[in-house]
Amino acid sequence: MDVIKHLEWRYATKKFDKTNKLSASKLMVLKEAFNLTATSFGLQTINMLVVESADLRKLLLPHTYNQPQIVDASHLLVICIKETIEDDDVNDYFDNIKDVRNTSETILNPYRQNLIKTMKKMTQKEQQQWSLNQAYIALGNLMTVCAIEQIDSCPMEGFVPEKYDEVLNLKEKGLKSVLLLPVGYRAKDDMFADFKKVRKKVKETVFEL
Amino acid sequence: MDVIKHLEWRYATKKFDKTNKLSASKLMVLKEAFNLTATSFGLQTINMLVVESADLRKLLLPHTYNQPQIVDASHLLVICIKETIEDDDVNDYFDNIKDVRNTSETILNPYRQNLIKTMKKMTQKEQQQWSLNQAYIALGNLMTVCAIEQIDSCPMEGFVPEKYDEVLNLKEKGLKSVLLLPVGYRAKDDMFADFKKVRKKVKETVFEL
Repeated sequence: MDVIKHLEWRYATKKFDKTNKLSASKLMVLKEAFNLTATSFGLQTINMLVVESADLRKLLLPHTYNQPQIVDASHLLVICIKETIEDDDVNDYFDNIKDVRNTSETILNPYRQNLIKTMKKMTQKEQQQWSLNQAYIALGNLMTVCAIEQIDSCPMEGFVPEKYDEVLNLKEKGLKSVLLLPVGYRAKDDMFADFKKVRKKVKETVFEL
Repeated sequence: MDVIKHLEWRYATKKFDKTNKLSASKLMVLKEAFNLTATSFGLQTINMLVVESADLRKLLLPHTYNQPQIVDASHLLVICIKETIEDDDVNDYFDNIKDVRNTSETILNPYRQNLIKTMKKMTQKEQQQWSLNQAYIALGNLMTVCAIEQIDSCPMEGFVPEKYDEVLNLKEKGLKSVLLLPVGYRAKDDMFADFKKVRKKVKETVFEL
């Protein structure tokens, strides 16, 4: 597989084919890929919503500056961060390591206590910024996975997170929406699909030492 | 190709095979993949250094809390952001669109002026935070591309950026180092390679609506 050809095929799709839906198995790839995103310390303080409901997406449209791709795409992915990182988030993580790897608490405990301390030292704003970084890693991962699977996508920062949080009841889940990725298939008549990709030359962005 | 298998194969490799170097063609894939990273507005305010020099990496080691993967890996990728975004960065971008797509200035000019204004409205700190987001997208993209190409990698935030900037003369290039990704091949005796991956269940991180 030529991964570069796939990355060149990718573009921020604004016009989706409304009738062409992702199969359950394609969706499963995206869900598993999100869950496999590398996160700092492995703590996974991010979540993803897969919004298929047409009604919900209609409600979200005005809070997305009426950009039609969020309703026309097969599904709308909403990447979220945890509002705060609690001791239990760290404890659940280490309990999971214990279960999966059968590591003893004697070995894990110093790491556990240390990570609880590290998280406590951060203000809520710092925790959110830290989780936001992981959300961008997930976005980069997902866009590349989409390209490989020949799924179209459109990364979006242009929306009103507070309104999304309201419509999607995120506050009660302790989450905040931070990034969008509508996914599906490009419309056959999307003229942008054939536009040449605009990029700097590799030698302008990459330096060897 | 089963992309999920590749993502499951990936882990943050701490112990690299010092004798196993990436081929020129594999390196080229990483360089092109970096350059193809989706960035906000397509502005590409990030750069990547590919550090092969053993001498330079030895100098960087104490500024990386002596984590040996930065010297043992085949190459050390250093992702950087621009210190400030100038009018010329925006102008170069639109000139590039004009060249590549043959779009007229009449069509492009309002977008050009608008983006110059948008960038001017940001403080330098906001510009850097904005570019940092793109750096994390690039990191997510690169880790996935590495996994697909069966290249090992280790995402790292734990280093002293100011010291890296000094050693690598980044100030004179107008750049700041923000993220590291040593790349190469795992050591055959790295016991962590066989550790089971620790992840939450997909149903704990992904919700359908």
